[in-house]
Amino acid sequence: MDKQHLLFERLKKYAHSDYYPYHMPGHKRRTGWDINPWQIDITEIDGFDNLHHPEGILRESMDWASSVYDSDQTYYLVNGSTCGILSAISATVPFGGKLIMSRNCHKSAYHGVILNHLKISTIYPQIVEKLWIQGGINPEIVDKSLNIHTDAQAVFIVSPTYDGIVSDVRTIAEIVHRRKIPLIVDEAHGAHFPFTSSLPSALDCGADIVIQSLHKTLPSLTQTAVLHVKSRYVDTERLERYLQIYQSSSPSYLLIGSIENCIYQAQKDGAEKWDLLYKKLNSFHQELSILNCLTIPTQDSLAGKDAVFHYDESKILISARNCFRKESNTENKQDIPHDKKSVDGMWLAAQLRNDYHLEMEMAAADYVLAIMTAYDTNEAFQRLRDSLFDLDRKLYRDNICEQWLLSQSRQIPTFSNATLQTGTDIADALNRKSEWIPLENCANRISSEFIYIYPPGIPVVLPGETITEPVLLQLLNYKHRGFPIQGPADINVNVLKVQKET
Amino acid sequence: MDKQHLLFERLKKYAHSDYYPYHMPGHKRRTGWDINPWQIDITEIDGFDNLHHPEGILRESMDWASSVYDSDQTYYLVNGSTCGILSAISATVPFGGKLIMSRNCHKSAYHGVILNHLKISTIYPQIVEKLWIQGGINPEIVDKSLNIHTDAQAVFIVSPTYDGIVSDVRTIAEIVHRRKIPLIVDEAHGAHFPFTSSLPSALDCGADIVIQSLHKTLPSLTQTAVLHVKSRYVDTERLERYLQIYQSSSPSYLLIGSIENCIYQAQKDGAEKWDLLYKKLNSFHQELSILNCLTIPTQDSLAGKDAVFHYDESKILISARNCFRKESNTENKQDIPHDKKSVDGMWLAAQLRNDYHLEMEMAAADYVLAIMTAYDTNEAFQRLRDSLFDLDRKLYRDNICEQWLLSQSRQIPTFSNATLQTGTDIADALNRKSEWIPLENCANRISSEFIYIYPPGIPVVLPGETITEPVLLQLLNYKHRGFPIQGPADINVNVLKVQKET
Repeated sequence: MDKQHLLFERLKKYAHSDYYPYHMPGHKRRTGWDINPWQIDITEIDGFDNLHHPEGILRESMDWASSVYDSDQTYYLVNGSTCGILSAISATVPFGGKLIMSRNCHKSAYHGVILNHLKISTIYPQIVEKLWIQGGINPEIVDKSLNIHTDAQAVFIVSPTYDGIVSDVRTIAEIVHRRKIPLIVDEAHGAHFPFTSSLPSALDCGADIVIQSLHKTLPSLTQTAVLHVKSRYVDTERLERYLQIYQSSSPSYLLIGSIENCIYQAQKDGAEKWDLLYKKLNSFHQELSILNCLTIPTQDSLAGKDAVFHYDESKILISARNCFRKESNTENKQDIPHDKKSVDGMWLAAQLRNDYHLEMEMAAADYVLAIMTAYDTNEAFQRLRDSLFDLDRKLYRDNICEQWLLSQSRQIPTFSNATLQTGTDIADALNRKSEWIPLENCANRISSEFIYIYPPGIPVVLPGETITEPVLLQLLNYKHRGFPIQGPADINVNVLKVQKET
Repeated sequence: MDKQHLLFERLKKYAHSDYYPYHMPGHKRRTGWDINPWQIDITEIDGFDNLHHPEGILRESMDWASSVYDSDQTYYLVNGSTCGILSAISATVPFGGKLIMSRNCHKSAYHGVILNHLKISTIYPQIVEKLWIQGGINPEIVDKSLNIHTDAQAVFIVSPTYDGIVSDVRTIAEIVHRRKIPLIVDEAHGAHFPFTSSLPSALDCGADIVIQSLHKTLPSLTQTAVLHVKSRYVDTERLERYLQIYQSSSPSYLLIGSIENCIYQAQKDGAEKWDLLYKKLNSFHQELSILNCLTIPTQDSLAGKDAVFHYDESKILISARNCFRKESNTENKQDIPHDKKSVDGMWLAAQLRNDYHLEMEMAAADYVLAIMTAYDTNEAFQRLRDSLFDLDRKLYRDNICEQWLLSQSRQIPTFSNATLQTGTDIADALNRKSEWIPLENCANRISSEFIYIYPPGIPVVLPGETITEPVLLQLLNYKHRGFPIQGPADINVNVLKVQKET
C-alpha cells in the first residue's frame, strides 16, 4: 500500500475539502483539542481507575453525570449504543424469556434477542401517511400487547426515530409500569433532548433504561454513548455484568474522556445553545415552505397527528414525495419501467453531493435526511437553503416532477409489513437448514438472514420472517435503485438464504 | 464539576509529568498526528465504506492487511481483543457445545462461554517453579484432553501469557487439527511477533484464529485489535455475523485508521526495528544479572525448561522472589504476621512509582512487570536500569531481604488450582440460588461470581468453582496486601456470592 492510499490520508484530504457534513457525528468536525491525543491515550493505570470496576475518578465522574441527568446511574459506553442495547436486553429479560419490542428497532436490539434466545412480540409503529415514514408507537397498542403477552418481561422501543419522530414515552411508561416490568428506550438519536427546553427526554418521561449515542448529536467522538438507569425494575448488578461483557477490557481513555467532556460542555452551554438552533430551524423551515417540488415537514405540519406525538425539527427531512402530488395524471404511470434518473432519495443525495458538495446523513426511498446540531455553522444553513432553492427551481423548470414514478413498492416504508409470528426464535431461525435462492424467487419463503438498509440499520426482514410479495418488491426496487442492502451473506444480494421447505 | 477535575485535564497534566510508562499502550505516548483528530472523526459516509459490510476502501485495506500477515482474512476490531475473542468462540462452538480452554484465559473468553452456554474442560498451564508464574501449555495435555473430550468443537489457548511465556503452538495446532477442529489463540500480548525475526507468531504456527491487541505492543490507539483467520475449520460467514454483533454499528474511524496505520508502520519498519529492541534488552539483562536481591528472568535462564517453550524478553519481569532464597533461616517465618511493608509486587511498584516516577504494567504477588516495545526511548532503559540498581542496593544494604515473608498462599500463582468439574455450565452457575457469605467463611463453598485480579484479568475463581482452602488463603492474602480484586459485586470483597447449600 502506498501512503496516499492510507485511510488517514484520505480522511485528511476529505477534512480539507469543502464538503459540508449534514450528518453525524454531531460535533461536525469543528471541535478541537489542545493536546496531541496520543499523549493522553493511556491504559487503566494507578490514579486513573477502571471503567469496569470504577472506584476512583471514573466512579466520581459517572456519579456526577448521573446528577446531571437526574438518573439513578449513568454509565459511559465505549462500544456505542450497541453495547448499551445488548446489555439492557440481556439484563432485563432472562435467557429464553419474552420481550415486546417495536419492529423498527436497530439491528443491535435483535442481536440482543438472538444472544439470549428470546421470544419476541413486535409492535409496529404507526405510519405518517403524508410522508410514508415510520411514526410513533401508539400507547394503546403497547397496552393491548401487554394484555396478550402477560409473560413479557420488558418492553423495548425506539424514540425518537432516525427521522425525528418522538413517541409518547410518558404514557407508554405508565402502561408498562402497571405490569411492574421495565421500559427500555433506545434514544440514540435524542442525546441532545436533555439539553433543550422543548423536547421531552425519555428518562424524564419515566423510562427505566435509556441509551443515548452521544456522537450522533452532541460533541463527542464517534462510538461513544451513555446508558441511564432510573428504575425499581432493573437489577443493576446484572446490568453491570453485561456492560463488562460487551465492552473492551481495554477501554480507550480518548473515548471515555470525550464522553465526560461532552456532558460537561452540554451542561455548561445549557438549553440556550440548543434553543437557538431550534429558532434558526424555525426560520429555515419558514423560508423553505415556498418550495415547489420538495417539501420539508415541520413540528406544526406533523404534530398532533395520530402518528406523531412530537417531532424533532433538527432532522431536516427533504422529501420528493410531493412532486408526485403535483402531477395531474398518474394513470398508467405504474407501467413505466423504473428509471434510475427519477427523483428519489438516492438522486437527491447525489445531486446535493455532486453539485453542491453537501453530504446528507441518509438517502431513503423518496427523501434525504440532513442532521443539524447546535454545532453547525450559520453558513451550513445558508448553503443548504441556497442549494435546495436552486435544486427545487431546476426540478420545477425541467418539469422533472412530471417524470416522477410511482411504483407500488414505494408505498412501503423502511420496515417490513410482514408480521413475525409471535414466539419465533430468531436465533433458532438463523441456524435452520437453509438453501440459496435467487432474490426474485424468494416470495413467501422464510428468510434465514437479516436484510436491512444501512443507514438506518433497521431490518426490513428478520430471520424467521416470511418474505411477502410486497416486501420482495420493495427489496427488488431498493436493489435496482442502488440502495445499500446489507445483512445477506451474498453482498450483491443476487441470492438469499431461506429455510428449506419441508 | 470544575474544569481542572475533568479526566482530560488530569490526563493532560499526567502527560506533561515525568512519569515514564513501562506499560501499555505500546506506542508509549510518543506517536503524533499532523491533524486535529476531530476533523477526521467521521461516520460511514459515501466513499468511506462500512466496517460491517466492507466493499470499498475498508475491504481493500483489510485485504491488504491480510496479505501482510499471510492470513486468509484479517479483520479490524474497534472493541478490543474482547470482541474478537467473543466472536471466535461464538463462531466455532455451537450453542451448548463443548470447548477445551486453558485455565489462564482472559475473562472475555469465559464471557464467550457464558453467552453460548458452553460446557468447558480446562487445561492448566504448567508452572515455572523458579518464579511461581504460569508457564506454557503442554501439548501432551492437550492431546490427552482431546482423547477424553472427543465431543470438543474447538480448543482455545493464550500464548504468550501476560508475562511473556510462549507455548509450542505448532505442536498444539498439529494435535488439534488431527481432530479436524480449530485452534484459537489469544495472542493479545504478541501483536509484535509477526514483525520480529525471533518470535514465532501463532498464525505462522498453524493456529486457525488468532486475536492480537495492537495497542498492547504496537503503535495503535488503545482498544484496537485484529483477528486473523487461516483455516479450513472456520465458518467465516458465522464469524462475521458475530463480529457485527459484538462491535458498535458506529465504529470510530480514528480507531480504524489507527489500526491500518499501525500495520503500515510496522511493516515499513520491518523486523530490524524489533530486532534492535531485543539486542538492547540483551545488554540490559546482562547488566542487571549482577543484582543482589532482585532477579529478572531471560530467555536463556527460562527456555528449554519444561514449562517454557519460548520467552519474550520484552516483558521485563522484576522478581523479589529470590530475596527469600538469600535468607539463611526461614524457620518460623510463617508465624510472622503479614506486614504491608514487606517486599512484594505492590511494594516494588510503589517504590518505582514514588521514588523514581516509573509506572509499571502490573504488580503481582512477588514481582512487577515492565513492558518494553520498539517505541521506548534509550532513556527509558537508562532510567529503569539506574532505578533498579539503586533499589536493589537499598534492599541489600537495609537487609530488607531478611524481613521477607513466606506465606503459604504466596506459592499460588494468579490462577486457581481448584479443578472445575468438566461439564459445569458457568452461565448457569451465575444464576443459581445464592447467598452472601463473609469472605473468610467461604472455604469449600461454590462461587456464584468471577473473582480475578486486574491486571491481568484472569479469573482466580470461576462461577461454579469450589473455593478451596488454598484459594481462599490466596484471596485473603491479596485483599490484605491491597491487590485490585475484581469480579465480586461487593467491591470491597468483604462478602462473596456463593451457591446456597441444599
